[in-house]
Amino acid sequence: MTVPAIDSFHALSIGALAHRLEQQGRSVIHLEFGQPSTPAPKGAIARAHHVLDTDPMGYWESEPLKERIAAHYATTYGVSVAPERIVLTCGASAALVLAFSSCFGPGARVALARPGYVAYRNTLRALHIEPVELACGPAERFQLSAARIAALDPAPAGVLVASPANPTGTVLSGPELHDIARICRERRITLVSDEIYHGLTYGEPAHSMLEYDPDAIIINSFSKYYSMAPWRLGWLVVPEMRVDAARARMGNMFLPPSALSQHAALAAFDCQDELQGHLATYRKNRDLFLQALAPLGLNHIAPPDGAFYIYADIGHLSDDSLEFCRELLLDTGVATAPGLDFDPVEGGHFIRFSFAASTERVTEALARMIPWFAARPRIK
Amino acid sequence: MTVPAIDSFHALSIGALAHRLEQQGRSVIHLEFGQPSTPAPKGAIARAHHVLDTDPMGYWESEPLKERIAAHYATTYGVSVAPERIVLTCGASAALVLAFSSCFGPGARVALARPGYVAYRNTLRALHIEPVELACGPAERFQLSAARIAALDPAPAGVLVASPANPTGTVLSGPELHDIARICRERRITLVSDEIYHGLTYGEPAHSMLEYDPDAIIINSFSKYYSMAPWRLGWLVVPEMRVDAARARMGNMFLPPSALSQHAALAAFDCQDELQGHLATYRKNRDLFLQALAPLGLNHIAPPDGAFYIYADIGHLSDDSLEFCRELLLDTGVATAPGLDFDPVEGGHFIRFSFAASTERVTEALARMIPWFAARPRIK
Repeated sequence: MTVPAIDSFHALSIGALAHRLEQQGRSVIHLEFGQPSTPAPKGAIARAHHVLDTDPMGYWESEPLKERIAAHYATTYGVSVAPERIVLTCGASAALVLAFSSCFGPGARVALARPGYVAYRNTLRALHIEPVELACGPAERFQLSAARIAALDPAPAGVLVASPANPTGTVLSGPELHDIARICRERRITLVSDEIYHGLTYGEPAHSMLEYDPDAIIINSFSKYYSMAPWRLGWLVVPEMRVDAARARMGNMFLPPSALSQHAALAAFDCQDELQGHLATYRKNRDLFLQALAPLGLNHIAPPDGAFYIYADIGHLSDDSLEFCRELLLDTGVATAPGLDFDPVEGGHFIRFSFAASTERVTEALARMIPWFAARPRIK
Repeated sequence: MTVPAIDSFHALSIGALAHRLEQQGRSVIHLEFGQPSTPAPKGAIARAHHVLDTDPMGYWESEPLKERIAAHYATTYGVSVAPERIVLTCGASAALVLAFSSCFGPGARVALARPGYVAYRNTLRALHIEPVELACGPAERFQLSAARIAALDPAPAGVLVASPANPTGTVLSGPELHDIARICRERRITLVSDEIYHGLTYGEPAHSMLEYDPDAIIINSFSKYYSMAPWRLGWLVVPEMRVDAARARMGNMFLPPSALSQHAALAAFDCQDELQGHLATYRKNRDLFLQALAPLGLNHIAPPDGAFYIYADIGHLSDDSLEFCRELLLDTGVATAPGLDFDPVEGGHFIRFSFAASTERVTEALARMIPWFAARPRIK
């Protein structure tokens, strides 16, 4: 087998253009990346200062952090997870690499929704696993369903679900997760659930797939709700029978993640007031976006039940979302992500707005974009 | 293809036993892991404090750090490396994953010396690449040579060299690197050079493979000379033609490494006095070990020209190095690494001592070990 070509992130090229404009003195509002604009919680930063001053540190896996994560599964979802089943990783990205590489061999097929996070498709391909992308439209809230999985012939080796999802923010309900878990169990499909946006929901809290399938493989991280993206710390929950394979890969392919990040993350669990404040900001930003949709002329969006994204159909204005994002940025200074990153087939007429910035910046972005969208000629 | 089973690190089980003994109140000296016992340099820690207080941080690739690394190649080795050819990673481990996965497809063969760092073999296998381990004995200073590579039929897709090497500390000279580069070029073999122990040499400074092959892929990190192992920051140098493939994998499989670690690492370049002080300590520890070899009865070691390891033949005492390390630890409180991690064939009669601890701890470890080794019955 040859070495597969991997697409790059188009949002990175928008980000690079935004950076050049800022260096030229332009005012840029960053809505292109999926990261909070807030720093790590104050308690986490204070803990990091303390550790820097008192602990020489070494390669380390924090048992207290694994115990704290296990306790989080008990209190938040009512499921029992032994700390030994938790593998700490350098971000959810490395957790995905560990999950895929310890579950699936070359040529295996893994089904997932399209649109979806760009790295799913590309990491699977880089590991020589075949992504089976199932087109999921607005009628399905851009999500997989048990019926879609049941209809796959032959059954794939794996199914990957994400709830809340990127780029759409849509959430799978408890009954929907239950049905997906059931069909995967019946068909002996390995189930991987990306729960990185848990904690960021605007209606009902999200359910964990562990509530419905104790053998599901769970991906999560401190990058979103905990506002620690640049600290690169994620985790994997694996069933008992997969612990050795996952840990052997962690030890060989990665070693443990940053010791300082592990110390800080443990403190972040005790910063709920600050983190709930960020959630309140995102809720306000989301409301502002929802109110601005009519003035923006964007009538087709996914219901953003969670995460901090609006995924909007711009088909009446463009079928080249990368060029559209470039022009929007050049004209208004607002950086957004082209749908092509998330959906190579339909993504030409979608763009993703991240509303994880401050309310002031989101307000300003909308004020700049509304006249620009209004002046844009309709192509259909 | 199926999912390959990956061995775990035996040194981790020794480390876990050492930890249990410490919890029982035993005094343990850690010579089992390849990490400095010193913290990050003071200037790096000061920089981290400053960044924590002033910068909210985000996903980030430090251009100044890439420029500083590029300048390091110019001043240390006299080679020109464009900063764009440097890919920052979560440690050298992730750099190895990136290098292997962007150069070699499933079933490709990569030749390397046995003994060697455990993760080479296991990471190659996890990526479905076939490690071709060439037994390299003491007469060859445990290193590959151009002649060995020339004799391989068919030619492998890749060759991996490491100088200074782990577990032996042996260094390949400039002429040896030159000859390896030449034969790889002639046979169209992709050359990967792990230079993670550069800066830690006790005779001539180590040469970079880039001096002999501008298209070689170089692995390095801030974990050893820069004393920042738990900060998880490494880098890859790739030739121009491989930049897109490596960067696309970095963006999808990993995202950029810890922003705080990147800030701190840039400051570490300006802490040469402190870092040279660590090197002086290692040199002193190495001399103590070399003087202690006769009292320990260890007559067969690799010449530790670099790194901070002694790889010693214990064949006269044991052919089960894991059990030997366990007993040594239980009896004396000195933790060491069994050769089996580095050589599944011959490693049963080797152990590795790391002398990256303080001189006081190394002195104490030797005082505990000398009578224990003397009392140990010879098996041959």
